[in-house]
Amino acid sequence: MMEHRTQIRVRYAETDAQGIVHHSVYPVWFEEGRSDFLRKVGVAYSQWEKQGYFVVVVDLTSRYAKPAYYEDQLTVVTCLKRFRKRLMEFSYCVVDEKGTQIAHGTTRHLIMDKKGKPSALSSDFYQQIQLKMAESAEQ
Amino acid sequence: MMEHRTQIRVRYAETDAQGIVHHSVYPVWFEEGRSDFLRKVGVAYSQWEKQGYFVVVVDLTSRYAKPAYYEDQLTVVTCLKRFRKRLMEFSYCVVDEKGTQIAHGTTRHLIMDKKGKPSALSSDFYQQIQLKMAESAEQ
Amino acid sequence: MMEHRTQIRVRYAETDAQGIVHHSVYPVWFEEGRSDFLRKVGVAYSQWEKQGYFVVVVDLTSRYAKPAYYEDQLTVVTCLKRFRKRLMEFSYCVVDEKGTQIAHGTTRHLIMDKKGKPSALSSDFYQQIQLKMAESAEQ
Amino acid sequence: MMEHRTQIRVRYAETDAQGIVHHSVYPVWFEEGRSDFLRKVGVAYSQWEKQGYFVVVVDLTSRYAKPAYYEDQLTVVTCLKRFRKRLMEFSYCVVDEKGTQIAHGTTRHLIMDKKGKPSALSSDFYQQIQLKMAESAEQ
Repeated sequence: MMEHRTQIRVRYAETDAQGIVHHSVYPVWFEEGRSDFLRKVGVAYSQWEKQGYFVVVVDLTSRYAKPAYYEDQLTVVTCLKRFRKRLMEFSYCVVDEKGTQIAHGTTRHLIMDKKGKPSALSSDFYQQIQLKMAESAEQ
Repeated sequence: MMEHRTQIRVRYAETDAQGIVHHSVYPVWFEEGRSDFLRKVGVAYSQWEKQGYFVVVVDLTSRYAKPAYYEDQLTVVTCLKRFRKRLMEFSYCVVDEKGTQIAHGTTRHLIMDKKGKPSALSSDFYQQIQLKMAESAEQ
Repeated sequence: MMEHRTQIRVRYAETDAQGIVHHSVYPVWFEEGRSDFLRKVGVAYSQWEKQGYFVVVVDLTSRYAKPAYYEDQLTVVTCLKRFRKRLMEFSYCVVDEKGTQIAHGTTRHLIMDKKGKPSALSSDFYQQIQLKMAESAEQ
Repeated sequence: MMEHRTQIRVRYAETDAQGIVHHSVYPVWFEEGRSDFLRKVGVAYSQWEKQGYFVVVVDLTSRYAKPAYYEDQLTVVTCLKRFRKRLMEFSYCVVDEKGTQIAHGTTRHLIMDKKGKPSALSSDFYQQIQLKMAESAEQ
């Protein structure tokens, strides 16, 4: 299971009238963690779409342990839990500078084609990604 | 169990580069369903905060069955599943004009005071809300 | 010059830690006013994109007179200031229930093709829209 | 006139159905540029609010020269144009990795107190900020 850490600085626009980060922002941070994970592995998601693969969110869970505030420096720890030709699962943990958990969550994804129909990664593309992940994990 | 229906028109800003509504928008719609539910019952959430009660999201689930598109006219069906002095639970179903389910989800909430500490609604306020809900359900 | 009024209810997610609507939300409301304007005229923007015309924002101004708060019921008054085959200009005024001005702004737009190149509406499509606007203005 | 550069990576949630960054996102980036500017100078905006000063946006302009896309690595160049006890003006330029201008804009701000009334920075706080800016500019 691979893990990757992404730095997030809380933006003012991400806060709400309770003075804390709005709960709908965490799925955006999870996605940024996921994007950053794939970039670091060397298979940026923008490349997937260029090859005709769309990774679509099918479900999402998010639990909120402590509030986050404007200017907080947070870390999203992203883990790839499952990687198949037709689906992917990630988990996320958001921690503050002291390592205290702010929130955690999960997402599951299906691979779709350009028309939004369920699809599968080609064996070539799938193996290429697995190889890059293996290389990345060794470093 | 009470149920309430809220109309939502998809905004362009709510779409993403896949051409569909971004998955982080649904929690915003769930919240709008919840807000509208409380307004219709006659206990608008803005009144809760004025009385010193902050309803904080502790967890969220969201499942995406079909994509939604710009200008779609959707309905958020909001149900209050549990209502206690210290917590609330809601479920949501987003359907399109034909009644087809687009997404569904849940949220759980704790009552907090102004300082963000767990709190409980006063018996007076709790009963006042229950009475209004009962009246609203009869209509 | 045509004018159209759109109702907006302030969402909790649109507020920030100052307790007011974040200034980046007004451009979203302007766009919703613009979308609603075109729908009422009978030339919904989703139809434009299906015909291969993309209306791209080239500039935006926004002035903030008074803050708006969660649950406020606002009206966006949208005016079409200029309509040419290659460009459009709109102005917007956001008012509260008493008619007090909250904000006003402007946007200018260019017509683009699918590839993002400057384009022009066909004479047919342009005249069809002008006709619908004339009919709509008479009602 | 001071200038500061802030790195921004385009998030998927910031794109729209045209496949490009939605125009309402740029004001959020401008704000992040402004926040980062103040942090680097050593007078983070979260400190201003703790001292009872709220910096409120009174107007905004934004011009869009070229589209930005998911995963683009952009730089927001933030300039402080005017700094008085009662008001501030900033300008912003968003450039891509080749230095090509994507967008530029301006914001003007008034200093408010906790109740949202126009206010002025105390001479002490104002001079403290000016001193830090002078030190920062020398580096």
